[in-house]
Amino acid sequence: MLKNVKILDTTLRDGAQGVGVQFSADDRLAVARILDELGVAYIEAGQPSASPADADFFAKKPRLKNAKLTAFGATARKDTAPEDDAGLRALLAAETEAVTIFGKASRLHVNQVLRCGPEENLAMIEGSAAFLKSRGREVIYDAEHFFDGYREDSAYALETLSAALRGGADVLALCDTAGGALPDEAERAVRDVCARFSVPVGIHTHNDAGMAAANSILAVLAGASHVQGTVGGVGERCGNADLVTVIAGLQLKRGIACVPEASVPELTRAARAIADIANLTIPPNAPYVGGNAFVHKAGMHIDGVMKTPASFEHIPPEAVGNRGGFAASELAGRSYLLERIRRAFPGKSPDKADPELLSLMDALKNDARLGLSYEAAEAGLHLRIQRHFTNSPPRFTLTQMRVVTDLEGSTAVLNIRAGERETLSAGQGDGPVHALDQALTRALEDVYPQIKAVRLTDYKVRVLNPDGATAARVRVLINSTDGAAVWSTVGVSENIVLASWMALSDSLEYYLNSKE
Amino acid sequence: MLKNVKILDTTLRDGAQGVGVQFSADDRLAVARILDELGVAYIEAGQPSASPADADFFAKKPRLKNAKLTAFGATARKDTAPEDDAGLRALLAAETEAVTIFGKASRLHVNQVLRCGPEENLAMIEGSAAFLKSRGREVIYDAEHFFDGYREDSAYALETLSAALRGGADVLALCDTAGGALPDEAERAVRDVCARFSVPVGIHTHNDAGMAAANSILAVLAGASHVQGTVGGVGERCGNADLVTVIAGLQLKRGIACVPEASVPELTRAARAIADIANLTIPPNAPYVGGNAFVHKAGMHIDGVMKTPASFEHIPPEAVGNRGGFAASELAGRSYLLERIRRAFPGKSPDKADPELLSLMDALKNDARLGLSYEAAEAGLHLRIQRHFTNSPPRFTLTQMRVVTDLEGSTAVLNIRAGERETLSAGQGDGPVHALDQALTRALEDVYPQIKAVRLTDYKVRVLNPDGATAARVRVLINSTDGAAVWSTVGVSENIVLASWMALSDSLEYYLNSKE
Repeated sequence: MLKNVKILDTTLRDGAQGVGVQFSADDRLAVARILDELGVAYIEAGQPSASPADADFFAKKPRLKNAKLTAFGATARKDTAPEDDAGLRALLAAETEAVTIFGKASRLHVNQVLRCGPEENLAMIEGSAAFLKSRGREVIYDAEHFFDGYREDSAYALETLSAALRGGADVLALCDTAGGALPDEAERAVRDVCARFSVPVGIHTHNDAGMAAANSILAVLAGASHVQGTVGGVGERCGNADLVTVIAGLQLKRGIACVPEASVPELTRAARAIADIANLTIPPNAPYVGGNAFVHKAGMHIDGVMKTPASFEHIPPEAVGNRGGFAASELAGRSYLLERIRRAFPGKSPDKADPELLSLMDALKNDARLGLSYEAAEAGLHLRIQRHFTNSPPRFTLTQMRVVTDLEGSTAVLNIRAGERETLSAGQGDGPVHALDQALTRALEDVYPQIKAVRLTDYKVRVLNPDGATAARVRVLINSTDGAAVWSTVGVSENIVLASWMALSDSLEYYLNSKE
Repeated sequence: MLKNVKILDTTLRDGAQGVGVQFSADDRLAVARILDELGVAYIEAGQPSASPADADFFAKKPRLKNAKLTAFGATARKDTAPEDDAGLRALLAAETEAVTIFGKASRLHVNQVLRCGPEENLAMIEGSAAFLKSRGREVIYDAEHFFDGYREDSAYALETLSAALRGGADVLALCDTAGGALPDEAERAVRDVCARFSVPVGIHTHNDAGMAAANSILAVLAGASHVQGTVGGVGERCGNADLVTVIAGLQLKRGIACVPEASVPELTRAARAIADIANLTIPPNAPYVGGNAFVHKAGMHIDGVMKTPASFEHIPPEAVGNRGGFAASELAGRSYLLERIRRAFPGKSPDKADPELLSLMDALKNDARLGLSYEAAEAGLHLRIQRHFTNSPPRFTLTQMRVVTDLEGSTAVLNIRAGERETLSAGQGDGPVHALDQALTRALEDVYPQIKAVRLTDYKVRVLNPDGATAARVRVLINSTDGAAVWSTVGVSENIVLASWMALSDSLEYYLNSKE
């Protein structure tokens, strides 16, 4: 490894400023544990002066194995001595080994937001850092709006860093707080600061111009050795630098260590776990850790990857703990479908002009027009192929359904024919789909007792043509497991209950077929 | 403006390789119209040899006002003379003024994917370009895997460009096909190519390392004058360079013209329209055009923006046709809520310690714990505030509900009390929510005939804790309009029907209040 970069994760502080993000006390603890396992250097867990919940978290702080827990706050207010400043006192009361304090590096901010003089600002920065150092803290100084300030008046922006250094700051972190810097100017400013100051220089970027991760990587290549960001890039407005992108890029492509080497293949799992806790979804196309980051759709790409994976994969997906794959679509072409057919019917191997294959392709195109996409529902596609090539009747069919919802909840009554037998069964649940699930399981468990092992682990609804408003078509995706395998099925209808029925019944049928 | 960059939009070709993306014939036409209005130089609309639908589109090609329609295809296959190559013939048959052909710039690809010799590859590139030039086409040469090839063997990668140039290529577009280049190497390679060749150099990047837009911007700053990408960054795996980010960055921050100046404020509208057509959602945190790109949540940021917008906004949101705002959340703090209260009750102006304000804040925190977030539902928050401060009863209440769903559709029966009057009403629909909407409108239209003007324009469902599977809590967001105003409301429940009821009934109540 060429050099080491210290990562400061601020998912719990700056990340919590993302619209829609909220962390409960338990959430925070869970996120801190994941980050600590991953081996980041600092976990910035909150701003104790801003919210009682943040202060609370520090009061009951978890024991960490690797990371330093870090509290965040502002420099002292104007006209306030550091020792009398409520914010700095709250910061000390958090009793963390390291603290981050932010001050202003831009004249615009000093004049118009702080509304004080430029010298007064310098004194506030120096005094606040010195005060925290005198109390034994490691001080990370966040130079807010550094790149804007450097553009406006680079001499003043640099003076604010000197003030922090005089106060004893251990790290000078340059922040692109409004997120507007383009990579050439970010790189140039970082290079200049690294040449002038001998303490470690850090970088903290936002993604308003879509450059947060690129600016962070360029900053490290220009000399920075401390990177602040969030997992998945969550944060205010367009978010912060996505640490996953920064860590994977620097470590896998340049050999610059950000976390212990063994942690890199844990990135996908960590990112997904934190997204789950934050109740966010990682976009399928997210670099490195997205569900489709290594999924190929174009026929020519699939062909290339089958010949040599490096042709269309910039890194092996396993290097970050992700998986590769091929998407089921028109563009994926015949070789993909042929491979799926061989999987569904071991021994069967139609050729590329087989009329049954062609009619299957037509049928799939028709499904796609209805919104029935198997891209996220491999088990659904498997079943579709089996049905296309066999004439055996389905294991069970629905002859009647009635789902009643009132203010108390839902009740489903189903008539299910399985073989010779017709079963009337009922189920109750919180909502119509839950009731349906209960009734279906009950109807089948006498004939197929093995289905008792199956449970649903995820249920997703997507409105396909939202302009149709409440008459819109919906797509339901269901993930199921029997404790060992995991599979996904899909249903589409203008009626959410019927779409759910399709996905639910396909899940059980797929499972029963797979157990023969 | 310093210089002009020609934009080649490939949303309809490379963008269609994104998992989940499909364009119907009408969709393609609509997207091409939007792009033409925006003023991009080229619209790469498909690969005629790959799919009959692509060929079809070119056969019925639309008349464009500004852009050149461009067809895409490979160089001739090995051992095939260009004039006998089916792909090149399909490309000519598309009868477009400009064509894009791609060849391989990497030895790995030549050896292992094409499985031919390096000289043969050069001959294929030169011959194909020359053939297309001889038929009067403008030829954009896409050097596939250029950056990987340059890393492996820069001399050979440059030779492939010379071959294209000998064939008469008009543009040499350098492609990061697998998306793995970091910005420093992308910039260096582009600078090298620009120094060696006098024809326009282009850039085509993918986002697998999260660098697509940054690499494109750096390429232009290093001398490239042609940028290929997609609107919203849609495309294979992690997608292509997002043209919105590239255009807005270059044009607003560096004065480099990519589209006519009047088109820049149209970027948000265009991006959203294309996402709608592609049935994708623009992530709320997308740079420039995301719904939250200029929405502030932290109290300190809101305070700064109120003093001077430039403090936390890197560009005025209007410059790209977006809007700023403040998010309704705990972190937004009291000044935000006070402003909302003044809006809900003109004249009312509680101070920051008002017990009613504090109890409202507590109530909102409790709502948030239940998943009831008003961040995307301003009308819902407005109503919540009105209810908190008034004792007047709601305009209507639900006393009984029964929604029955069977294989034919759904029927809803509601008992609604409005004033002294109790109405039993029924509605039918494709699904339970549609039926509910019909029944509610019918119950209220005698008492409040003005609600006939209201219709729902969007309906979204989000599962909040997907691990609860079908018993998970769902959040329903509804957008409504009366033809003039537009408003959003929210409902949360473990029962999707009840969550929908909350959002639906709030929408009508909000409307009735607003009309007093």
